[in-house]
Amino acid sequence: MVSHIGLVGLGKMGHNMRARLRRGGIEVTGFDPRPEVTDVATLEALVEALPSGKRVVWVMVPAGEPTRGVLAELGKVLTSGDIVIEGGNSHYVEDQERAAELAEKGVGYVDVGVSGGVWGLENGYGLMAGGSSEDIEALMPVFDALRPEGPRAEGFVHAGPVGAGHFAKMVHNGIEYGLMQAYAEGYELLAAKDLITDVHGTFKAWQRGTVVRSWLLDLMVRALEDDPKLAKLDDWVEDSGEGRWTVDEAIAAAVPLPVISAALFARFASRQEASPAMKAVAALRQQFGGHAVKSAQ
Amino acid sequence: MVSHIGLVGLGKMGHNMRARLRRGGIEVTGFDPRPEVTDVATLEALVEALPSGKRVVWVMVPAGEPTRGVLAELGKVLTSGDIVIEGGNSHYVEDQERAAELAEKGVGYVDVGVSGGVWGLENGYGLMAGGSSEDIEALMPVFDALRPEGPRAEGFVHAGPVGAGHFAKMVHNGIEYGLMQAYAEGYELLAAKDLITDVHGTFKAWQRGTVVRSWLLDLMVRALEDDPKLAKLDDWVEDSGEGRWTVDEAIAAAVPLPVISAALFARFASRQEASPAMKAVAALRQQFGGHAVKSAQ
Amino acid sequence: MVSHIGLVGLGKMGHNMRARLRRGGIEVTGFDPRPEVTDVATLEALVEALPSGKRVVWVMVPAGEPTRGVLAELGKVLTSGDIVIEGGNSHYVEDQERAAELAEKGVGYVDVGVSGGVWGLENGYGLMAGGSSEDIEALMPVFDALRPEGPRAEGFVHAGPVGAGHFAKMVHNGIEYGLMQAYAEGYELLAAKDLITDVHGTFKAWQRGTVVRSWLLDLMVRALEDDPKLAKLDDWVEDSGEGRWTVDEAIAAAVPLPVISAALFARFASRQEASPAMKAVAALRQQFGGHAVKSAQ
Amino acid sequence: MVSHIGLVGLGKMGHNMRARLRRGGIEVTGFDPRPEVTDVATLEALVEALPSGKRVVWVMVPAGEPTRGVLAELGKVLTSGDIVIEGGNSHYVEDQERAAELAEKGVGYVDVGVSGGVWGLENGYGLMAGGSSEDIEALMPVFDALRPEGPRAEGFVHAGPVGAGHFAKMVHNGIEYGLMQAYAEGYELLAAKDLITDVHGTFKAWQRGTVVRSWLLDLMVRALEDDPKLAKLDDWVEDSGEGRWTVDEAIAAAVPLPVISAALFARFASRQEASPAMKAVAALRQQFGGHAVKSAQ
Repeated sequence: MVSHIGLVGLGKMGHNMRARLRRGGIEVTGFDPRPEVTDVATLEALVEALPSGKRVVWVMVPAGEPTRGVLAELGKVLTSGDIVIEGGNSHYVEDQERAAELAEKGVGYVDVGVSGGVWGLENGYGLMAGGSSEDIEALMPVFDALRPEGPRAEGFVHAGPVGAGHFAKMVHNGIEYGLMQAYAEGYELLAAKDLITDVHGTFKAWQRGTVVRSWLLDLMVRALEDDPKLAKLDDWVEDSGEGRWTVDEAIAAAVPLPVISAALFARFASRQEASPAMKAVAALRQQFGGHAVKSAQ
Repeated sequence: MVSHIGLVGLGKMGHNMRARLRRGGIEVTGFDPRPEVTDVATLEALVEALPSGKRVVWVMVPAGEPTRGVLAELGKVLTSGDIVIEGGNSHYVEDQERAAELAEKGVGYVDVGVSGGVWGLENGYGLMAGGSSEDIEALMPVFDALRPEGPRAEGFVHAGPVGAGHFAKMVHNGIEYGLMQAYAEGYELLAAKDLITDVHGTFKAWQRGTVVRSWLLDLMVRALEDDPKLAKLDDWVEDSGEGRWTVDEAIAAAVPLPVISAALFARFASRQEASPAMKAVAALRQQFGGHAVKSAQ
Repeated sequence: MVSHIGLVGLGKMGHNMRARLRRGGIEVTGFDPRPEVTDVATLEALVEALPSGKRVVWVMVPAGEPTRGVLAELGKVLTSGDIVIEGGNSHYVEDQERAAELAEKGVGYVDVGVSGGVWGLENGYGLMAGGSSEDIEALMPVFDALRPEGPRAEGFVHAGPVGAGHFAKMVHNGIEYGLMQAYAEGYELLAAKDLITDVHGTFKAWQRGTVVRSWLLDLMVRALEDDPKLAKLDDWVEDSGEGRWTVDEAIAAAVPLPVISAALFARFASRQEASPAMKAVAALRQQFGGHAVKSAQ
Repeated sequence: MVSHIGLVGLGKMGHNMRARLRRGGIEVTGFDPRPEVTDVATLEALVEALPSGKRVVWVMVPAGEPTRGVLAELGKVLTSGDIVIEGGNSHYVEDQERAAELAEKGVGYVDVGVSGGVWGLENGYGLMAGGSSEDIEALMPVFDALRPEGPRAEGFVHAGPVGAGHFAKMVHNGIEYGLMQAYAEGYELLAAKDLITDVHGTFKAWQRGTVVRSWLLDLMVRALEDDPKLAKLDDWVEDSGEGRWTVDEAIAAAVPLPVISAALFARFASRQEASPAMKAVAALRQQFGGHAVKSAQ
């Protein structure tokens, strides 16, 4: 069973994960380009520090080029029997491609979707894994150290073969978009109504007994505690890519996704200074009816 | 058959309608508070100017209080056998209430949805009427003067009893919201793509042979002709009430209306300086992930 | 302080609430037309059973006519200083009308949105109240007995004047529609993908550490535990009225509600045997392209 | 200038296009595997039949494999200076890949989006072309024969370099989805209301004077003429791929597309026997409230 792993990437997520793994009794050798956080100077040094036999390296760097770069380097230094865990937010199709390449060298590949954000250090991380049963089995001590306390099945799933972990995480994030937008729309409607004299208190009162209680609701209460009218924030919302992939995937599978897509589009719109589409609607109204429009300033 | 009517309200719509009616051989006595456009000084004078027997007064003033006020005054001066035509954008339920009140005095009521905007003077107006067959029959010369040339059934419908005219017009406008938003979204996507070097030309090329050709498309081409990037316009779009009623009505009838409601909500959003809902989403992301947010300026 | 109340309506909700109130030390005299559950034979008997002075009657019957009927009867037998609590799902505007009528007799009115479903007996109920501070203050022992254990503010809010309780509950239910649809869309996408070999396990693994953890998620896990492919259920979903009111209210306030409205429309569509709108789209495609359509069977 | 072209694919579209090209004075040698419609026995024979110098072959076969196969074969037999026109519904990225391959041999590539359906033979086809100005210029006699009569710019656009034609056609089809759904939703709402006694007549009356008049509206009127309640049709609607690409493209460009995506999802839903998502919502309601659900039959 695995008791010592390498961890590449000690950013916001990786740094906390190293701490939680160590608390859970897993030895961790971490690598990061930033000298103030790294345990070793190079990726090669990290691999050399691991016990020979089934070496395990968890990759926790940004999706896309950074992940691809680290995996390519690991492909050079790892050997048959070793396992790579891709714990970032890779697209599941990339997992399948990377796994096939590494399999040619006998290196195993497991993809893990990790949820929990900055709270994971204390609460534990929800984990969704894809890979062979054999690889997953070997890694269970690692997963057990990271996941929340309580029954294993409430914080960890072996969702299917390679790619399934990130596919499940992608859908998780798509759901998350929908949930956040639902609370947000409710907030706007409450805040728009003078009749409601305590919007923060209303959200707060939903925390224990109602159908809508959730961790996101708890966070909403915290946010309103600090800033009851959200006056300190701009209405500008980034999207991380996984919401987009979720909708792309639904389109490929002919699955209707009205709520999740609406939540995604609301984020796109939030980042526009002006909406070209709504300019076009204004233009049409001006053309047919002489309706009032506003000139661009 | 009716050959002389009163017309109350000589604004953007009423003024043009008077002109088209007169061209079509209908005598019109118009009343408007503005001395420069009115034919008579008072509503009473208008009623007196009409031929006795079946007097007909077409009301063409803004929906809501103005219309209610004029109809109340007419209720006092008209008598059994006369007919009121409500040609504004009243809600169909109000039509039914007004008609019931006037019916107690023997005054008929016909509601007419009028479409065509500022172009109606030349093109004719699309007309949707609600009322009794007898009243509609008597008014056909008036409708024939207003509607476009060509077969009567392609510019006029007796859609049902009182209220049906405005209900049909309400749905017409709901459809209009959806159509405009569809073109607008297509515009935004074309304009976002550098590959397309001629957005205006693309819309223009759709005018004669394609599946999407329409009058609104022709207007879109005109708008882009004047201002190819719609740079002169703000992305601020009013809604007139009928889009809202359409969605309300669909909700009452349990009819799914995803496209028309999305078009309506896009207009609401276009008028917000900042979206409270998207502030809430930003707040949630900040809470759980330490994600980048923008502070309000 | 109030220690004995009347409770009208001992159905699915009222029956459990009586039990929880009694456990919490509140004396309850319940009335219901069904002899097997009622404590007294008539509404009059219920009122007589209450301690004189500030009598309190909680009404927990279906919204609409049943509630209106009970409130009208209570209006006859209650006297100045008494308080009615409307705990059903009345529309907040009706609350305001009823409260005004009762106020003429000096009878107080408090509206309370109650959330928690069949689980409320054990977990406690989330409560949102509208009314005067004086009335709410007097009723706090009752609310404390019903709400979940823990800090009062996490299970109870005085949201504003009369109507605010039901307005808050209406928005709560609108949010609930959006949350449920978000999970449901995610479920469909996971279930559509062969790569995911354990859909139930995936939902289960989200329960403790992830961003999407919630009570509804826990219920989803229970549902999939019983029936992993939901094969025993029809895809037919009722809507209770509050989702509709939420969207109506948003339209009145010009608040965009894309997610909650999409969730509502999905329910409407779920109850249609065939979609007239999609027949119309099929008809159009057949007209312009000779595209394949299916004939009605 | 080109006066004789090869045309590969004589199906529903190609067959009519050959006829219209010939009427317009363009010599056409057509190839199709079906002997009853083809002019020549093989693709090689088609190429040989063309005048030497700048040979032009228009490909009009189903998108995907069929188109790829024909283009690969043409790549073998065409030589420097020849031009291929891809007139099917290829994805614009594939155009760019194919063009690059053919350019290595000096063969030009022009992609043309063609709209008009079965009506194009009589009305002419709306054309959107992508390619070099030189190639487009040489092909104008061909485009002029196909496009509708009237000003060239109202039936043809050179939208940009290779890929722009199909990108424009893709957006055209996305708009088409939105337009069709808007009319369809309006139809459903009118048909649901007893107040409207003449749904067909209402659509018919919109044809000449209203804001919503269009070719699609004319087709709707035709469809309702044949079958006023659309009773002969199933509510099952295919999607052709271009709607999906439009939404994919919008997601890639962060362009909100609420209406077009809603129209696409409505088609997906129309083809489901039962909605897994709505089963999940039903399951949740059953879990928390003991709400009525329907068992699968």
